[in-house]
Amino acid sequence: MLNEFAYEQKPHEECGVFGICSPDASVNVAYASYNGLLAQQHRGQESCGIVTNDRGVFSSSKSMGLVTEAFDQQVLDSLLGQMACAHVRYSTAGASVRENAQPLVMRYIKGTIAIAHNGNLTNAYELHEELIQKGCIFQTTIDTEAIAYIIAQQRVTSSSIEEAVIRTLPYLRGSYSLVVMSPQKLIAARDPNGFRPLVIGRIGERTYVFASETCALDACGATFVRDVEPGEVVMADRDGLHVVQKPTGRHKSLCVFEYIYFARPDSVIDGINVYEARKRAGCLLWKQKPVDADVVIGVPESGIDAAIGYAETSGIPYQKGIVKNSYIGRTFIKPTQGEREKSVRLKLNLIPHAFRGKRVVLLDDSIVRGTTCARLVSVLRDAGAKEVHLRISSPPFRWPCYYGTDIPDKDCLIACQHTVEEIGKMSGADSIDYLRVENLAPMLGVEGGFCDACFTGHYPAPIPNVSVADKMYDYTKPIQRVK
Amino acid sequence: MLNEFAYEQKPHEECGVFGICSPDASVNVAYASYNGLLAQQHRGQESCGIVTNDRGVFSSSKSMGLVTEAFDQQVLDSLLGQMACAHVRYSTAGASVRENAQPLVMRYIKGTIAIAHNGNLTNAYELHEELIQKGCIFQTTIDTEAIAYIIAQQRVTSSSIEEAVIRTLPYLRGSYSLVVMSPQKLIAARDPNGFRPLVIGRIGERTYVFASETCALDACGATFVRDVEPGEVVMADRDGLHVVQKPTGRHKSLCVFEYIYFARPDSVIDGINVYEARKRAGCLLWKQKPVDADVVIGVPESGIDAAIGYAETSGIPYQKGIVKNSYIGRTFIKPTQGEREKSVRLKLNLIPHAFRGKRVVLLDDSIVRGTTCARLVSVLRDAGAKEVHLRISSPPFRWPCYYGTDIPDKDCLIACQHTVEEIGKMSGADSIDYLRVENLAPMLGVEGGFCDACFTGHYPAPIPNVSVADKMYDYTKPIQRVK
Amino acid sequence: MLNEFAYEQKPHEECGVFGICSPDASVNVAYASYNGLLAQQHRGQESCGIVTNDRGVFSSSKSMGLVTEAFDQQVLDSLLGQMACAHVRYSTAGASVRENAQPLVMRYIKGTIAIAHNGNLTNAYELHEELIQKGCIFQTTIDTEAIAYIIAQQRVTSSSIEEAVIRTLPYLRGSYSLVVMSPQKLIAARDPNGFRPLVIGRIGERTYVFASETCALDACGATFVRDVEPGEVVMADRDGLHVVQKPTGRHKSLCVFEYIYFARPDSVIDGINVYEARKRAGCLLWKQKPVDADVVIGVPESGIDAAIGYAETSGIPYQKGIVKNSYIGRTFIKPTQGEREKSVRLKLNLIPHAFRGKRVVLLDDSIVRGTTCARLVSVLRDAGAKEVHLRISSPPFRWPCYYGTDIPDKDCLIACQHTVEEIGKMSGADSIDYLRVENLAPMLGVEGGFCDACFTGHYPAPIPNVSVADKMYDYTKPIQRVK
Amino acid sequence: MLNEFAYEQKPHEECGVFGICSPDASVNVAYASYNGLLAQQHRGQESCGIVTNDRGVFSSSKSMGLVTEAFDQQVLDSLLGQMACAHVRYSTAGASVRENAQPLVMRYIKGTIAIAHNGNLTNAYELHEELIQKGCIFQTTIDTEAIAYIIAQQRVTSSSIEEAVIRTLPYLRGSYSLVVMSPQKLIAARDPNGFRPLVIGRIGERTYVFASETCALDACGATFVRDVEPGEVVMADRDGLHVVQKPTGRHKSLCVFEYIYFARPDSVIDGINVYEARKRAGCLLWKQKPVDADVVIGVPESGIDAAIGYAETSGIPYQKGIVKNSYIGRTFIKPTQGEREKSVRLKLNLIPHAFRGKRVVLLDDSIVRGTTCARLVSVLRDAGAKEVHLRISSPPFRWPCYYGTDIPDKDCLIACQHTVEEIGKMSGADSIDYLRVENLAPMLGVEGGFCDACFTGHYPAPIPNVSVADKMYDYTKPIQRVK
Repeated sequence: MLNEFAYEQKPHEECGVFGICSPDASVNVAYASYNGLLAQQHRGQESCGIVTNDRGVFSSSKSMGLVTEAFDQQVLDSLLGQMACAHVRYSTAGASVRENAQPLVMRYIKGTIAIAHNGNLTNAYELHEELIQKGCIFQTTIDTEAIAYIIAQQRVTSSSIEEAVIRTLPYLRGSYSLVVMSPQKLIAARDPNGFRPLVIGRIGERTYVFASETCALDACGATFVRDVEPGEVVMADRDGLHVVQKPTGRHKSLCVFEYIYFARPDSVIDGINVYEARKRAGCLLWKQKPVDADVVIGVPESGIDAAIGYAETSGIPYQKGIVKNSYIGRTFIKPTQGEREKSVRLKLNLIPHAFRGKRVVLLDDSIVRGTTCARLVSVLRDAGAKEVHLRISSPPFRWPCYYGTDIPDKDCLIACQHTVEEIGKMSGADSIDYLRVENLAPMLGVEGGFCDACFTGHYPAPIPNVSVADKMYDYTKPIQRVK
Repeated sequence: MLNEFAYEQKPHEECGVFGICSPDASVNVAYASYNGLLAQQHRGQESCGIVTNDRGVFSSSKSMGLVTEAFDQQVLDSLLGQMACAHVRYSTAGASVRENAQPLVMRYIKGTIAIAHNGNLTNAYELHEELIQKGCIFQTTIDTEAIAYIIAQQRVTSSSIEEAVIRTLPYLRGSYSLVVMSPQKLIAARDPNGFRPLVIGRIGERTYVFASETCALDACGATFVRDVEPGEVVMADRDGLHVVQKPTGRHKSLCVFEYIYFARPDSVIDGINVYEARKRAGCLLWKQKPVDADVVIGVPESGIDAAIGYAETSGIPYQKGIVKNSYIGRTFIKPTQGEREKSVRLKLNLIPHAFRGKRVVLLDDSIVRGTTCARLVSVLRDAGAKEVHLRISSPPFRWPCYYGTDIPDKDCLIACQHTVEEIGKMSGADSIDYLRVENLAPMLGVEGGFCDACFTGHYPAPIPNVSVADKMYDYTKPIQRVK
Repeated sequence: MLNEFAYEQKPHEECGVFGICSPDASVNVAYASYNGLLAQQHRGQESCGIVTNDRGVFSSSKSMGLVTEAFDQQVLDSLLGQMACAHVRYSTAGASVRENAQPLVMRYIKGTIAIAHNGNLTNAYELHEELIQKGCIFQTTIDTEAIAYIIAQQRVTSSSIEEAVIRTLPYLRGSYSLVVMSPQKLIAARDPNGFRPLVIGRIGERTYVFASETCALDACGATFVRDVEPGEVVMADRDGLHVVQKPTGRHKSLCVFEYIYFARPDSVIDGINVYEARKRAGCLLWKQKPVDADVVIGVPESGIDAAIGYAETSGIPYQKGIVKNSYIGRTFIKPTQGEREKSVRLKLNLIPHAFRGKRVVLLDDSIVRGTTCARLVSVLRDAGAKEVHLRISSPPFRWPCYYGTDIPDKDCLIACQHTVEEIGKMSGADSIDYLRVENLAPMLGVEGGFCDACFTGHYPAPIPNVSVADKMYDYTKPIQRVK
Repeated sequence: MLNEFAYEQKPHEECGVFGICSPDASVNVAYASYNGLLAQQHRGQESCGIVTNDRGVFSSSKSMGLVTEAFDQQVLDSLLGQMACAHVRYSTAGASVRENAQPLVMRYIKGTIAIAHNGNLTNAYELHEELIQKGCIFQTTIDTEAIAYIIAQQRVTSSSIEEAVIRTLPYLRGSYSLVVMSPQKLIAARDPNGFRPLVIGRIGERTYVFASETCALDACGATFVRDVEPGEVVMADRDGLHVVQKPTGRHKSLCVFEYIYFARPDSVIDGINVYEARKRAGCLLWKQKPVDADVVIGVPESGIDAAIGYAETSGIPYQKGIVKNSYIGRTFIKPTQGEREKSVRLKLNLIPHAFRGKRVVLLDDSIVRGTTCARLVSVLRDAGAKEVHLRISSPPFRWPCYYGTDIPDKDCLIACQHTVEEIGKMSGADSIDYLRVENLAPMLGVEGGFCDACFTGHYPAPIPNVSVADKMYDYTKPIQRVK
């Protein structure tokens, strides 16, 4: 029954980046990176890597799996230096193999360089074809390698690494939050739309940190300085922090799903706290369509924040009706179909005492295929809920994302096939409501400045055409790495 | 600052047991055990094991580490049979080594047998000495091996395995919830005080399941039948479930800390739902000493349940002010002292937006050393809390536990050294309150029937004398297993 | 063609033991044991273990696999103390699982004890049954555990560990070379027949070493002192070496196959160098039946020694005609049947230049199933050998071994089904000859004092009766350890 | 004493290559490659890899360590296709890390390609600099990556992969035996000097195999067809074998050390059997300087072949006086200095019975630092040798190798510091003799056609100038891969 949501089917985030540059020898950059990756583990659980830089000598360790599995004391202690660049990866493009783990480390015209990338280039296929036509070779299947090539080629005629990075960016389309480490400098760059978050922190007076989310700053003891602005390029070195390319000032289009689902509730992105945004979504859902009910329950984790907001506004008490088993992660052995039916309550389980005999408002962050809702509503009823009112803290998914979110094909999206009313009926809920598109801005407390293309189809930047997308899809097939 | 509670210092549970006997070939007992262990992983994360039984041929797999790390598809598929016995372990007594992993599998007079044990024998040292005097050899350092010996010796003159188990129990003092698997039978036994939980579930008509907690029944698709009663011995075989020794009817003394901290909120122990008990603790704390405040916050995980109850009764809104990083587990590399100060917010982090400028009631389940409280209160204030009122959902720890809970030495327990008023001052909180001992019964909604010895020193069963305790302490030293 | 002998089908040795007691702190007993095990790796490749003893505190590390795989620097450095006991194992009786790895470490009446055992008890089943009837439990499937029990039970009424060991020996039938380590003493005992080798060495003045073979003494820098005599028990402690039970003086029956195949050529057993014995076998084969030939070739490894002897006596030049790939060991992936035919020359390969167009005398140590000879003769001919004369440096295998050698069932032994003439014809060789039984004594240069039961059926000690042997065969089935 | 030669100090070979193209579906190319690598494991033990090709879809598995450790059944079964390219690596240039494991697999203008390389480019630094100046990036530190780039760039303007490879070769200086696999074709190329061996074999009618040594052909069931000639490029596809570039006809300069030490005795290189060449070296050493002696002994492994030849010519009997422990490989834990003295006989041990009281001729293949000889002579004397006459089956090392052999710095080469007479005295031998340079041709039975630069300084191809060599030395430092 509950088994659908026992097996991840939520959209996935692509990556988390981290960088640190510390003239202060008392800061251990390897441990700081380890902590920064741990805090951002939710952004990618397939592989991870830390590259440190000891006056030009780079030490690198990359592995498949979680941060806690990938690094031990001995490895951390061998990662020397006062600068580091690190990455956690979830693979949308590029197979899930060790060769694709980031940061990418390479030798180029000016020595060694490391690159960590969060985002998705919409012109990756074209860049790749163009470079290959020039005789480039590709040893990975990640678009970061194309970025590396362009930086390397630009560096030939540039006077500095930051100039080479700045000259590279115009070639890139789509989303990217980059951390680039050269022997002397650590550079952070965010695409002109600012699709993915990227922040600056500071430890003490002279140590600068770049990270995808502010929770990584907290984890390594840094204080938040500010966001890297869309189109901006900043650089840290022994002398401190420098803006090397000013923000474009273009309309920001941060992925609104970062607030709804991806980011940690304790992070602050572009000035907005994620938890507060989620609570406001709950509050807005109450205002959109109030309902007479006895308890408010959230589907862990992000549904809980929305539920707290809904409860606060409505006055209906918040209850913990569903608990998540935090020991079940990526490597969990999925039971056979036959077993599934019996093991429904493995990853999520109910606390019937919280809602038995009561009218329940159930908050979830999104509906993808819709089967989950139906099962969830059904098990809640079986466990004694008198009524179940489904409230979704985002608008219906109707469009693919090209900027780094892994959303299933349109064929799989229930909202592409059915109206909200139909979805409500199919779910078996007593009522259903999605957050309205016009409530996304109020949810964030801003006028605009975010990307809602997956809900509206209004893409703020060019998207790949279909034929190329298909080619990209086939792209990784010819190399299958084993074990 | 927060670092103390980043490094586990809560009391630890010892173990979780699981057993399944299925005449129905469509039930895969290995996968059912896997799911049952996953659901009970919170009861022990150091080692785990599953032993299956295919008409007398036992297959066994035991490993250090988490259930998801220990088993893969290939291993599960090689665990054949229609009966199984399984275990997750946290080591209080007995070193944390593979040799000590359970279930214990052995050959004895009637073939093969497997034993899984949750609890702590208070006469382990005496049993051990007595057996050793007879020429017994001990290959592990767990008290389960002594139980195995007595069963084996009783079996010589018994007509059945269940008779041998029943004859063994009078030799045992202290706490035990046992699952014993013989070639034909699966036996569950709970000590006369019922210190540790043990439940019976059923899948379909003929498959019986034994587990420490009901959440394991949910996880493997079983429905709850009833608790094994204190002193009761039940047996499952191809013909169904049999009571082979009736409950003693003695006053039950279930460990109250199971409700306060150990068990999962979705479990029901001896008729009481854990989540409801925790909420009632929050409710009683409000009634004990109401306070004028703006938000209620809980320290994850069990503090959250108490906070929800406190909020519900007081009308003060519940907020998520502290989030836990669920990727940080057992194998996390602890930073050096220097790094600690900087990485305070790694395992738990704050959401200041939830309480900034507000008067906070902070719910935690217990105070052990007290340093955590002080730091927690301090970081909350730093993050903008106007007032912090500390509420602890259990009475002060003042006595050691001999029944399977790993509580630090008296010297480390702040409540043994200081009054509640002093603890309040030391914590820096604006006010402090513990759940009163007389409110434990109302918390559970019963008249009695639980063990509160760690709070009161009223031990419901004999305890080891000091000199023996010391010997037991030295017991595992002479064998140190490496890697 | 050659593929049969690419896949081990030689008889297997059971184990190698090692012990060291050093009052001299400058000797690292863990490294000495590591070296001693490396030198004896040929005696067992399935599992290995080292147990050290630091004034009564034992440290133990046991693993499946080779010595180089099982131990790393960190493990060796954590094995503290000035006494050690170690073991390499090949499993005849008892499944190949980690639980069965030796030395067996246990707590008993006088603290901790470790036992390493090479040999095979012919009354293991009876001992086991008897102990089980008394309520003993068996956690492994090795007969060493029964020895441990008897020592433990004897120790109850003995005044010392050596007395307990001495009292234990009369219970044991069959073969054993034992090293027993108690908190203060290291004891070595050899069965009254002296079936398996056991030697004493010394490092400096006060450090005593026990080992299966002298090559282990060389490897750890010890000088050979003398053999432990059949029935003798010696003990080393801080005060030096003590004979605690005199040799029985019974007729010695050392396994003659130690000389023919098992032991290393650089070892000296009971006064006889293995290499010299093998060369004499070659010499005797020439004398038994001279042949007109051009080159002498040996099948690696032990066939080479016999070939050198044959060449020396006959004057026919010795050539290296077959080379062995030393990188192919235990874990080599065997090809499918189809592939086998193609990969015949993987483990052994020919150097046709050494014998092309020549008449070859081919020396091998034994014939088990006979298919190997046929293939070997055939590929030699294909590669250009004009004639192939097969000479086997042992008599035909016709009887099972009960003293620790793993010889296939009679049904598989070609010499039980066919005469030597028939075997010669089936092999396709131009002539064949086995070493005559009456030449075993001249091969060793002694009058007698060895066991040749596998050739003659003259068992020097009682053997198990058939029905019991069958029971023993089924003995390990009921416990199958997975991974 | 013997410990110096217990710790590898012989020159090292760089690599072994393997390729197979089979239109015949009954040939499993993954298993054939596995067997081919096993047979060539002596050429490189640090990493290995197999890449298969299923109609353009490449599957790749590369690992650190030995072939038996790197591959299991599951991995082999997942390597699909009818073409494969494989490699074993010993690292001279390029750090010993997984990133540097070969075959190099990459996407380039025409899809996917894999390259395996044995040899050393003398202009690697220049190629690298030139490519980097064009904006190329290097993700490994092996010169193979430069070859890959040039092939990729030539492919842009070539009509076929073989044309691109042919156009690439003129850019390369130094030694290379290459196997290149494109989606449709398998190409083998050998440098114009033919420094490193490369052979062609065939299985059945249509399956072609390329390998470094003929022993790999034997191992996978292929028959030897012929050598790839110096400067020749051949190509195998579904239609059979094609010569795509004729041999240059230049004077061949195969590394003579392949015969003396590197290659397996059962291999035939450029028409000469390695075992026979080694025996002839022994024979020539007798003729150079006969000595009155009682036994001839060889230092395993290659010294044994020379000893057999020496014995054959001289009539002095060959004996096995030194045995090698084949279980001690790469991962063996070296003892501390203190332990070394005691563990001298760990890797090699003596059989004193073979030479006690006798005059010994000791054959070894080379002397590098000289300390080994001294120790070896000394332990032989201690073990009873009356005289020790040292014979070395190669001339003295005096010059560095730039073509793929890892010879220590001149400062470490004893023959650069001392005359042969001095070396003889320092060794403590009663007499010493090296194979004379003028006897290298007779040893091979040819007039010339080999490289003896390490003995003579006559380099048959340009060598890097010193300053560049230094740069190359520093080349890999800036990237240190951890774990």
